[in-house]
Amino acid sequence: MSKVRVVIENITPRVDCGRFPIKRTTGETVIVEADVFTDGHDVVAAMMMYRHDTAAEWHKTPMKPIGNDRFRAQLTVQQLGSYLYSVCGWVDHLESWRRGLRKKYEAGQDLTLDLKTGALLAEAMAERAHGLDAQRLREWAAAITDSRRDIEERVALSQTDSIRELEYRYPDPETVLNWDSPLEVEADRERARYSTWYEMFPRSAASEPGKHGTFADVEKLLPYVASMGFDVLYLPPIHPIGMTERKGPNNNPTASKSDPGSPWAIGGAAGGHKAIHPELGTLDDFRHLISKAGERGIEIAMDIAFQSTPDHPYVREHPEWFLKRPDGSIQYAENPPKKYQDIYPFHFESDAGEALSKELRGVIEYWISQGVRIFRVDNPHTKPFPFWEGLIREIRRLRPDVIFLAEAFTRPKVMYRLAKLGFTQSYNYFPWRNSKRELIEYFTELSQPPVSDFFRPNLWPNTPDILPEYLQFGGRSGFMIRLVLAATLGASYGIYGPPFELMEARPREPGGEEYLNSEKYEIRYWNRDDPTSLREFIARVNRIRRENAPLQSDRGLKFHSVDNDNLLAYSKTREEDADSVLVVANVDPHHAQSGWLQLDLESLGLPVNGPFQVHDLLSGARFLWQGPRNYVSLDPGHSPAHIFRIRRRVRSEKDFDYFL
Amino acid sequence: MSKVRVVIENITPRVDCGRFPIKRTTGETVIVEADVFTDGHDVVAAMMMYRHDTAAEWHKTPMKPIGNDRFRAQLTVQQLGSYLYSVCGWVDHLESWRRGLRKKYEAGQDLTLDLKTGALLAEAMAERAHGLDAQRLREWAAAITDSRRDIEERVALSQTDSIRELEYRYPDPETVLNWDSPLEVEADRERARYSTWYEMFPRSAASEPGKHGTFADVEKLLPYVASMGFDVLYLPPIHPIGMTERKGPNNNPTASKSDPGSPWAIGGAAGGHKAIHPELGTLDDFRHLISKAGERGIEIAMDIAFQSTPDHPYVREHPEWFLKRPDGSIQYAENPPKKYQDIYPFHFESDAGEALSKELRGVIEYWISQGVRIFRVDNPHTKPFPFWEGLIREIRRLRPDVIFLAEAFTRPKVMYRLAKLGFTQSYNYFPWRNSKRELIEYFTELSQPPVSDFFRPNLWPNTPDILPEYLQFGGRSGFMIRLVLAATLGASYGIYGPPFELMEARPREPGGEEYLNSEKYEIRYWNRDDPTSLREFIARVNRIRRENAPLQSDRGLKFHSVDNDNLLAYSKTREEDADSVLVVANVDPHHAQSGWLQLDLESLGLPVNGPFQVHDLLSGARFLWQGPRNYVSLDPGHSPAHIFRIRRRVRSEKDFDYFL
Repeated sequence: MSKVRVVIENITPRVDCGRFPIKRTTGETVIVEADVFTDGHDVVAAMMMYRHDTAAEWHKTPMKPIGNDRFRAQLTVQQLGSYLYSVCGWVDHLESWRRGLRKKYEAGQDLTLDLKTGALLAEAMAERAHGLDAQRLREWAAAITDSRRDIEERVALSQTDSIRELEYRYPDPETVLNWDSPLEVEADRERARYSTWYEMFPRSAASEPGKHGTFADVEKLLPYVASMGFDVLYLPPIHPIGMTERKGPNNNPTASKSDPGSPWAIGGAAGGHKAIHPELGTLDDFRHLISKAGERGIEIAMDIAFQSTPDHPYVREHPEWFLKRPDGSIQYAENPPKKYQDIYPFHFESDAGEALSKELRGVIEYWISQGVRIFRVDNPHTKPFPFWEGLIREIRRLRPDVIFLAEAFTRPKVMYRLAKLGFTQSYNYFPWRNSKRELIEYFTELSQPPVSDFFRPNLWPNTPDILPEYLQFGGRSGFMIRLVLAATLGASYGIYGPPFELMEARPREPGGEEYLNSEKYEIRYWNRDDPTSLREFIARVNRIRRENAPLQSDRGLKFHSVDNDNLLAYSKTREEDADSVLVVANVDPHHAQSGWLQLDLESLGLPVNGPFQVHDLLSGARFLWQGPRNYVSLDPGHSPAHIFRIRRRVRSEKDFDYFL
Repeated sequence: MSKVRVVIENITPRVDCGRFPIKRTTGETVIVEADVFTDGHDVVAAMMMYRHDTAAEWHKTPMKPIGNDRFRAQLTVQQLGSYLYSVCGWVDHLESWRRGLRKKYEAGQDLTLDLKTGALLAEAMAERAHGLDAQRLREWAAAITDSRRDIEERVALSQTDSIRELEYRYPDPETVLNWDSPLEVEADRERARYSTWYEMFPRSAASEPGKHGTFADVEKLLPYVASMGFDVLYLPPIHPIGMTERKGPNNNPTASKSDPGSPWAIGGAAGGHKAIHPELGTLDDFRHLISKAGERGIEIAMDIAFQSTPDHPYVREHPEWFLKRPDGSIQYAENPPKKYQDIYPFHFESDAGEALSKELRGVIEYWISQGVRIFRVDNPHTKPFPFWEGLIREIRRLRPDVIFLAEAFTRPKVMYRLAKLGFTQSYNYFPWRNSKRELIEYFTELSQPPVSDFFRPNLWPNTPDILPEYLQFGGRSGFMIRLVLAATLGASYGIYGPPFELMEARPREPGGEEYLNSEKYEIRYWNRDDPTSLREFIARVNRIRRENAPLQSDRGLKFHSVDNDNLLAYSKTREEDADSVLVVANVDPHHAQSGWLQLDLESLGLPVNGPFQVHDLLSGARFLWQGPRNYVSLDPGHSPAHIFRIRRRVRSEKDFDYFL
């Protein structure tokens, strides 16, 4: 029978029994816990081990008992890429003996034989130790059995902490249990966790109406984007657009000659996924844009839409990458009874699937070689999961700084699966979560393990596909409240502009969510200097995010109760920051709402009875609050939200230099 | 790239990611669920597979979608031993096509090519099918593409259910995903789930004071035990008792010559774990008792206490099975500063551990060969987990009807671990759960997965070691209420008698839970005919258990709210039974309590508005209730509880034969 008596259960964090990695960004910690116990009364020791997967050596950290047989230790990820972590444990005979000896000593029992037992254990450990450690153990064994010393001294000696440390270093390997197989952390760079996105159609970037915008025009708009505080500029596909079955304005099935078509209809005479739409500029122009954006701290995110028009070179060169219909024609995309005859989906489930996957991975590698590090992936849920899992693993093995945002507006388990298998960030149901109750339910789910360990939401109040009803009818304050919610509930969020900041609210048809005269099908000219623009409000909110670290993480979200169903209150707190952020938002865009806020002071690190200052970073106002119950009132005509910075402690006369 | 596009996640039931089996008894069902989905819009099919581990063939059952990408199927365990179950899934192209075709037909689209696509899919499936099935598929393919039939007929034909059945039989094996590794169900006999235990010391069974009881005396008490409705008679250890360091009455460290010692101090001149204490009788007497008990439907449960006195033959014959102290003496049991010098624990963690384990397994095998099928294991948590896991697996492989009850009054995770690794039933914290809140919390935990899948509580209001304070101070109604709670919250429960039915309530010392003049250390004489005995009340409660199947299972427990903190209400319901049981208990043994009960009618299968009859099986009273809110009042002086049978439906004039 094995001499292993210890048991390890329920290691956390863990996703799907360890099938998938958890996610962190560099500098973030992983708090590892496990149940470690044995039969009887013996003391167990538990150790957490971790290493970067490129390192050979494991770091080992003793785990601390936190009650109920649970142990805890933590690691901080420092380096991009993959870390492994695991737990081992053993019955610690020497420590069990030390605890027993202490109790026997306190009960006044004879200890002569017991001290000898301890010495034998230490000598056995010395056999496994080296050099000085072995010597220390032998000296210690000799000392506690040295009959010239009095018993008090020997007992005191037996309890020294230095021995505890050696116990962790030299357990009997025959008794050590290692957790089945190591778990994994994917370590991303900071922008994977905290990012502020602006989406725009480059073809609408021209400085005068009626012209096709270019990368050079986008460059001119970089100060505009930067002034609002965005750090990711996401461009819809920049590739040649197909002519066959091209869609006209407002998704008209027939296009006129001058209609530019949808950028997602990829592939034309000028090339496919590695080519650039000629009217936007050249590859050099694109690289220049990337570089200029970089100078302003802005990264260009590229759209990856793995599908082809009938005009895509792949159709001629690799007809085996598409599904054939019985008449030999290529199967276009459909979701019966809807047909998308301008789009040919790729067919992975064939013998050519391997070569197709390799080609598509090559597309991403190509754009990486041009300097792109962020990819927003269009409809990843319509391609096989194993394709993405393999692609992302391969790319990140070489370039762990690459970020993939999944645009999978689909069923919850599919959305989560894509995040588990490697997508860095994910679009989610935020556009359709508007009421207080919906927001609390959804963000409670997202902010708790296991979801929070693998799913990083990126919150979009609007996209070119989604003009939510709330924005159609909420007016200016509707836009403001959705911006505040996105920017403070999510460490990553984005807007599709200029329609957002210019509060474009007209749908193509009543009850629909498509924009009227959508940029998806036509070039628009925008008056970015419109004095009613939300530009400055957005800039203020993004500055608040930049200056308040708790808003840069999805951890530490806590809802507080307000006795009004239209007032939503939540805080964000991080252990390492002195200040918390408290948001109170009126989700009713039309009426003033007020109520009593009941704060969970403990979660905010605030004294239960003392006063504390709250500082509204939106309005600049400061209030002195006391205790958990405080009155709040928000008029959407004025400002639909407070974003309070909470100082954990207010100075009193006792802090005054001469008070004592 | 693999052609597998389907994903399987989150199979339930499952304990510790499949590391341990779930438990059921024969006739019980396992409802297997899993998330099964794929990319895009395609339909997936999921199949649940199971087999007894002695069978070669898998049974296969199509799983039904229940929403949110979750699928469900169920199996019923019929045979003792181990079952395996698993899930597989695949993208069902033919079914996807059928759904698409239906929608296209409804939208009035041209279907000529689509019908051809379906025919090709069916022909490909025919290649994998055999005989008639292949022929049916080919005929179907021909029929739906037969241009002589009109399109309505061909579409109608394409939607026939007969094809759906074939889709489950002949998926393309290259696209099928099997769950990683099958999960396990341990199938026990019914008594593992539903059992009613009576513990008694055979040495106190003599019919006159001052005599040492024998197995023959126990036989004479079988009618008494049977009359109360018990089906398991559990005897403390029946082995020779050691003389060295023998304990006197009330755990006195020195015993007089006539003191019988503790039955748990196993091993003396007459032998060890395979021997019988001579004063109790012979092996033949014991076998006779087993047989006589069996005639009354009572099984004898044997105590397994794996420890030795200094007088045990093992100490001489196998000193290597014990831990030595530095002076060569054997290490007695201790929990510093407490010493148990009459007990030598076995030492498993040595090279002799293997032989020791084998010997101890042999002890159990020996008693099985004498006819014992139920073992109550003393302090299993002080022996290594792997020892028990191996022992129970080996025993049950040959004798799956053997039941092990774990007496592990220890920390929660240790208690659960023993259940996971194979113990059939478990002692638990019931003796210390007395208040309404404690009971609701604890039994909510126990009755929900994953705990309910591996842990079968056996509820004891008292044991020879535990006279809870509630019984010390609760008086007669205190005993009654604890009995009702044990017997109705737990499908398995037991009492230690006669102290229970005779309401013995004196502790050895104030604040302690040891019985005064405990039978553990002395022989007691009991007046079983005492007219104040609870014997008849116990008999009535056990008859109610026997006649009401919902009480024979730990599933289907549901708490209902009462607006009084001393009134506890819960129901037990099983889908297969027409009636439910509703218990309302006053946990205050001293005062009458009343309140409004708010029933969850839906969980009881009752109409929201109609009347229903409740029949108190304890008092015989019947009440007609209506709606969820009903008044309840319980005077402990009279009866501390109702055990209602609820008829799901009350007859009305519409049920009368001539009403229509």
